Amino acid sequence: MKLIQLAKELNLSISTVSKALRDSHEISASTKKKVLAKARELNYEANPFASSLRKQKSKTIAVVIPEIDNNFFCLVIKGIESIAQEKGYHVLIYLTHEEIKKEIAITNLLQNGRVDGILISISNQTVNTTHLEELKQKNIPLVFFDRVADDIDSPKITTDDYSGGFCATEHLIERGCKRIAFISISPSLSISKRRMNGYLDSMKKNGLETDSSMIIQCSNDEEHNNQLIRELLSSTNRPDGVFASVEKDAISSYKICEELKLKIPEEIKIISFSNLRTAALLNPSMTTITQPAYEIGSAATSILFKIIEKKPIHLTLDKTIFKSELIVRNSTQ
Amino acid sequence: MKLIQLAKELNLSISTVSKALRDSHEISASTKKKVLAKARELNYEANPFASSLRKQKSKTIAVVIPEIDNNFFCLVIKGIESIAQEKGYHVLIYLTHEEIKKEIAITNLLQNGRVDGILISISNQTVNTTHLEELKQKNIPLVFFDRVADDIDSPKITTDDYSGGFCATEHLIERGCKRIAFISISPSLSISKRRMNGYLDSMKKNGLETDSSMIIQCSNDEEHNNQLIRELLSSTNRPDGVFASVEKDAISSYKICEELKLKIPEEIKIISFSNLRTAALLNPSMTTITQPAYEIGSAATSILFKIIEKKPIHLTLDKTIFKSELIVRNSTQ
Repeated sequence: MKLIQLAKELNLSISTVSKALRDSHEISASTKKKVLAKARELNYEANPFASSLRKQKSKTIAVVIPEIDNNFFCLVIKGIESIAQEKGYHVLIYLTHEEIKKEIAITNLLQNGRVDGILISISNQTVNTTHLEELKQKNIPLVFFDRVADDIDSPKITTDDYSGGFCATEHLIERGCKRIAFISISPSLSISKRRMNGYLDSMKKNGLETDSSMIIQCSNDEEHNNQLIRELLSSTNRPDGVFASVEKDAISSYKICEELKLKIPEEIKIISFSNLRTAALLNPSMTTITQPAYEIGSAATSILFKIIEKKPIHLTLDKTIFKSELIVRNSTQ
Repeated sequence: MKLIQLAKELNLSISTVSKALRDSHEISASTKKKVLAKARELNYEANPFASSLRKQKSKTIAVVIPEIDNNFFCLVIKGIESIAQEKGYHVLIYLTHEEIKKEIAITNLLQNGRVDGILISISNQTVNTTHLEELKQKNIPLVFFDRVADDIDSPKITTDDYSGGFCATEHLIERGCKRIAFISISPSLSISKRRMNGYLDSMKKNGLETDSSMIIQCSNDEEHNNQLIRELLSSTNRPDGVFASVEKDAISSYKICEELKLKIPEEIKIISFSNLRTAALLNPSMTTITQPAYEIGSAATSILFKIIEKKPIHLTLDKTIFKSELIVRNSTQ
């Protein structure tokens, strides 16, 4: 049912019907009543794009994430959706597949009013942030979560990555590890750098050596990453502990240990940042640093709506840092 | 940068600039050139809603799914996104949380032109399908995947649920199980009914009894479901094999076996439909019936675009049934 048909049915001009539907003062109460009754009868609905154009609101937010087959991001989306649904907003999902090129294409696409705001967790290739700066310049509400761009002045919802990294390493050392490897997803990514700094500081504090062979920089080539982990775990001077900065690399480490017949935790202990639902059921169950992913998603979205609705943001909310939790299981026993 | 500003900069009327940008024949070539040059210089972009209104295309598709913290749906979204990105389309995600009420609210929201097409996997409460019939009546392209509404005449992309259910049960029987329980997610859901029919037929073929105590109907109350599984597994006449129709219930079964100190596979064997990335790493590794989730997502989206683009659909494509794969691991040894 289009506006033109509704007008025809009512024997009124399109302009009159349109004004009546918008409750314009130019239209008499009796005409408005007649128009509304007919609109209801014919199940007429306004075109959302015409409505967006008029109100300059899209009622839509965008979520830009590196990947979706990842328990952390799935739980974040669940948190985002809970707030968006409450607000009557639509949620667009964009995947960068960890490619800066795709991230730029997506943010360019979002510059022209398609969405009222953007939630983003940047790709592991994102070093130059001009494309994000442009969103800011166009006054598009922008909130970072988890993987943030430190140089862009927008709210950032993160986890205590440094403490998490420090705590994971302390835990491995307490359990007797001396040669601890760190598996990083990117040398530039905020979360990866902070987790590594926590690792380095804990090692230093405990007087343990960290040579470069113990730090693995993963890329987007999973086969290559597996090869790096395989070389690490089969070297003569192999680590007795592995701290994976993301779940994917811990899963790879488990698989490679099985392949190499390395016993977890007897010969090598493993800990990882992870939101894996099956962590407790793995063989052996995996010790994790777990982030409150759902809460991160809902908090980031609440702040985004504060900006969209032009409400004041408390400085304390602007950089919310959630606590992660160490869950000790058998992989570090 | 708004159209009005661009017109001001050019010292032209809004109407002229708008027509020039739309390449109207009413505007001279030299004016068009001038307008385009200035638009580029000032980084002017058309409002996507104005553009959608003009073209009657939203360049957006909606994906309606019951939940997102589920490996199957994550992989499906990845497949959907791969095709949508190729086509330059935006992807809206809606979660019904397995509630028919939410599913109706979402489909009502999508009736008025916000999207060019809809991909849906229905909730486990969806029995009445009037809200889906309404989408059809409004000529909104609609494709079902996995959880389909049999009575709605739209393309359906599914897996061979009956064969998968039959094959899972045959496998348990081959491995010596005699009392096999089936855990269903819904008495009404297409996939659940077909998987159960496969189970029932295999049991019958092998001369095994299936009493009602061996069939568990789960609801959306996870605590209650766990209680049902707990009662089943701790009864004196407990099953020696469990066939879970979805991954979530297999994970619960693993946890409850641990709780009850029931040894998998010695005392009880478990098989499940699942796309769990860690299935091979569980204790014990889990035998699964695995669906080609990514391919289901991309196939459903390709067909949706055929409808959107008004291209002919081959009848064979209209009801594509993908094969699932039995992956034997230690939980059924």
